[in-house]
Amino acid sequence: MKQIDVNSDLGEGFGPYKAADDEALLDLVSSANIACGFHAGDPVVMDRTVRLALARGVEIGAHVGYADRQGFGRRHIAVDHRELELMTLYQLGALQAIADAAGQRLTHANFHGALGNLSFVDADVADALLRAVRTFDRDLIFLALPNTEAERAAERHGLRVIRSFLADRAYDSRGLLVPRAVPGAVVRDPDRIAARITRLLQDGTVETIDGGTIRLDASSILVHSDTPGAVTLARIVVQAIREAGAEIVPLSQAA
Amino acid sequence: MKQIDVNSDLGEGFGPYKAADDEALLDLVSSANIACGFHAGDPVVMDRTVRLALARGVEIGAHVGYADRQGFGRRHIAVDHRELELMTLYQLGALQAIADAAGQRLTHANFHGALGNLSFVDADVADALLRAVRTFDRDLIFLALPNTEAERAAERHGLRVIRSFLADRAYDSRGLLVPRAVPGAVVRDPDRIAARITRLLQDGTVETIDGGTIRLDASSILVHSDTPGAVTLARIVVQAIREAGAEIVPLSQAA
Amino acid sequence: MKQIDVNSDLGEGFGPYKAADDEALLDLVSSANIACGFHAGDPVVMDRTVRLALARGVEIGAHVGYADRQGFGRRHIAVDHRELELMTLYQLGALQAIADAAGQRLTHANFHGALGNLSFVDADVADALLRAVRTFDRDLIFLALPNTEAERAAERHGLRVIRSFLADRAYDSRGLLVPRAVPGAVVRDPDRIAARITRLLQDGTVETIDGGTIRLDASSILVHSDTPGAVTLARIVVQAIREAGAEIVPLSQAA
Amino acid sequence: MKQIDVNSDLGEGFGPYKAADDEALLDLVSSANIACGFHAGDPVVMDRTVRLALARGVEIGAHVGYADRQGFGRRHIAVDHRELELMTLYQLGALQAIADAAGQRLTHANFHGALGNLSFVDADVADALLRAVRTFDRDLIFLALPNTEAERAAERHGLRVIRSFLADRAYDSRGLLVPRAVPGAVVRDPDRIAARITRLLQDGTVETIDGGTIRLDASSILVHSDTPGAVTLARIVVQAIREAGAEIVPLSQAA
Repeated sequence: MKQIDVNSDLGEGFGPYKAADDEALLDLVSSANIACGFHAGDPVVMDRTVRLALARGVEIGAHVGYADRQGFGRRHIAVDHRELELMTLYQLGALQAIADAAGQRLTHANFHGALGNLSFVDADVADALLRAVRTFDRDLIFLALPNTEAERAAERHGLRVIRSFLADRAYDSRGLLVPRAVPGAVVRDPDRIAARITRLLQDGTVETIDGGTIRLDASSILVHSDTPGAVTLARIVVQAIREAGAEIVPLSQAA
Repeated sequence: MKQIDVNSDLGEGFGPYKAADDEALLDLVSSANIACGFHAGDPVVMDRTVRLALARGVEIGAHVGYADRQGFGRRHIAVDHRELELMTLYQLGALQAIADAAGQRLTHANFHGALGNLSFVDADVADALLRAVRTFDRDLIFLALPNTEAERAAERHGLRVIRSFLADRAYDSRGLLVPRAVPGAVVRDPDRIAARITRLLQDGTVETIDGGTIRLDASSILVHSDTPGAVTLARIVVQAIREAGAEIVPLSQAA
Repeated sequence: MKQIDVNSDLGEGFGPYKAADDEALLDLVSSANIACGFHAGDPVVMDRTVRLALARGVEIGAHVGYADRQGFGRRHIAVDHRELELMTLYQLGALQAIADAAGQRLTHANFHGALGNLSFVDADVADALLRAVRTFDRDLIFLALPNTEAERAAERHGLRVIRSFLADRAYDSRGLLVPRAVPGAVVRDPDRIAARITRLLQDGTVETIDGGTIRLDASSILVHSDTPGAVTLARIVVQAIREAGAEIVPLSQAA
Repeated sequence: MKQIDVNSDLGEGFGPYKAADDEALLDLVSSANIACGFHAGDPVVMDRTVRLALARGVEIGAHVGYADRQGFGRRHIAVDHRELELMTLYQLGALQAIADAAGQRLTHANFHGALGNLSFVDADVADALLRAVRTFDRDLIFLALPNTEAERAAERHGLRVIRSFLADRAYDSRGLLVPRAVPGAVVRDPDRIAARITRLLQDGTVETIDGGTIRLDASSILVHSDTPGAVTLARIVVQAIREAGAEIVPLSQAA
């Protein structure tokens, strides 16, 4: 029986502001990527999210981003590599301290928004970011998008890599995400999303945007948290996984 | 031979801004209280300060403060106790991650500015703050001002406490600092400062503002970093310690 | 026919975060107190709120607060009086510039959260804040809670004052709001809220928390925006005003 | 007698931090570009800088930048054009309010750091920024670097443009600044700096980095404030102007 993780970006509120229905999503996912107070989150939100996850057996990871609440970490900022490395250490340490106090270790790390996008294509940035993860804790899993510079850097630094599949996003023939601006990049039809999950779990393949087929060795599926209908979409993903005869397990236990 | 630590608040720059002559002071002190990015400091400044300290055998601690760069952590903010505890964990974890990457453990922690002042007099705040320190790492030393609620909370939480003496500040008969606004609260005459250090090291006593004498069991002396002439004053303190026949040692080795 | 304004605190989102259903509330109120980017709001949110108000004939004012997004301006910060005055000027100027570009002048100003609360009881703070309003534009109306130091300061500085009534909050015999922590301070029953509005409009009186009666000369009614059911409550308020035979008009035209 | 303005970027401190010796520089320059609280400055620093300028007959302008204190506005942030326009309005309004309270109008505006650099080469960004300036106050002078998109946008929007000359920076044959990274881009020799000023004032020409000559119709000379020896360099500039027989006048009176 195929085992797969379901992950989501959570803890993205800030002060009085709420971003997603974290509790409902934590009832559905098996791993949570938690914002660390730079692009979103704050000590109180981080603690609450860690504890909600712990109570549900959901594993937690650090979702590291630019220091940019105004832009929610979605705007590129020209930060030099050394500072990127240090701000990654800072965020990892901060979240780990709050998680430790709640009695939970971080399982994994990944990168948010514009910083994540940059790490897909810039080998030097990817190297700085993954060096920070490796330096902080060599047992952290890196939750990767396949075929990116970030994935290669994680492997180079000796980190365990688990690949994440975006069921609602189109892929190109190289196995990379099609940018959102391209028509057809976002899959909105629930039936198609479910079908893509079934295919991934049964064949290990994805249909590309131009109608071809690629192999994709993913052991986790990302559920977006901050889109309208996120909880509904998460339920569709969970149901599709079950109907495909697979079992949802936390990241560290995913194949 | 009496052994004593000399500590100072360092790493208080931010982005392009410099606060003190950190390098010159690190040549003189044996322990550094490093700002953690809330009232001052940032990941780059923290890293640089940690490495400058390490290169000189200076021990490092977390100097935890309010999230208030504008006010440099010197303005009271009405933050609830749970948030104080969590933001302390956050800051400790962040600095420890950066220090670990440089190959150094934190030795100690203390609290900055308005948060520190509140911890002297508010038992509940002191309890929340010291609980965070204890939860983060029970081996951290708490660098205390004597006879404060923070000192009592640290003892209650089982932390090792080392007391810090402010050679340029007057004490009252209870062993507490006289508020700066009171005439005579700040000692500026270098000869008097040196004499107070000599007396502390030889007799273990301090003259109070009203001419009395109190016992003060301090194993560390604080050197202010951000006053004009800070480096000169630090040199006076170091010389007074040596002339009193005492040895300067890092905090963890202070009696 | 009695004319009365209905005001609400709007534009309290920030970056990706939404605080209230601003559009629905702007369909109901006649004046909007707009956050100026310190405790909430940002240039984009401010512009959008100004334009939504303009399109509906809703008058706008500056809702000035502490620089504290984390605490949403609800935590007291010990800022000195001169800085309070300057940060008020800063916020007024920033919002006016954005409003001018949209073709609308500010009608009024008032103070948010902890800063507002302080201005009720601290005459020196009130004086600094209202001096800033007067210096910026002597034609601004000050939207006041009755019987506060802020109201007195506005009168002393020669500003036109319009009093705001909180239909869902209890008053004491001095005409001051009963603090939220006191049992009975918040009125939640829609019928009672409607009855209080009717009484205010017909008799000019309010029942106090201890069963007495006070006169209250209010020409505006505040509708809370960030409580659950805010839009429903706003509809109740609007309906009660109409059933009392009064007319809703923007602040500058309220008696 | 040739009349020329000397301008400098001032008011770049923040909270406890100082950036330059503003008072010494304000004794030398005739116009000040004042940071508006986004990349540097805060209401207190803005007020102090405005008042120091006013006391010396120095004209003031808004130095608008990215919201990035950490990077001092020197890192590019991918902000969309509409937000750039609104954040420019916000900064202009904020500074004008503080200046008005001190009894001084803004004379001019220009753009700082990475935002300024972008405005040199990106016509759409330049258009958004200069539209904001024009919308705020059509009488503001735009202090331009020659031959840039920002200069063209200012002319298109009908703003009066005055060109600024950087005596310590090399120019290329198109009249554009040579990027700092290029060898020879920064002129450090005081005699050469003085000679370049003399030549500009007497011939209206500049020697390019490749030994050619270009015409440059500048009516203002920029003095950097935050380099070591800034005050000394400013004195050299002032002396060179006087020795060339020119008169230093505020921006609005410069030819």
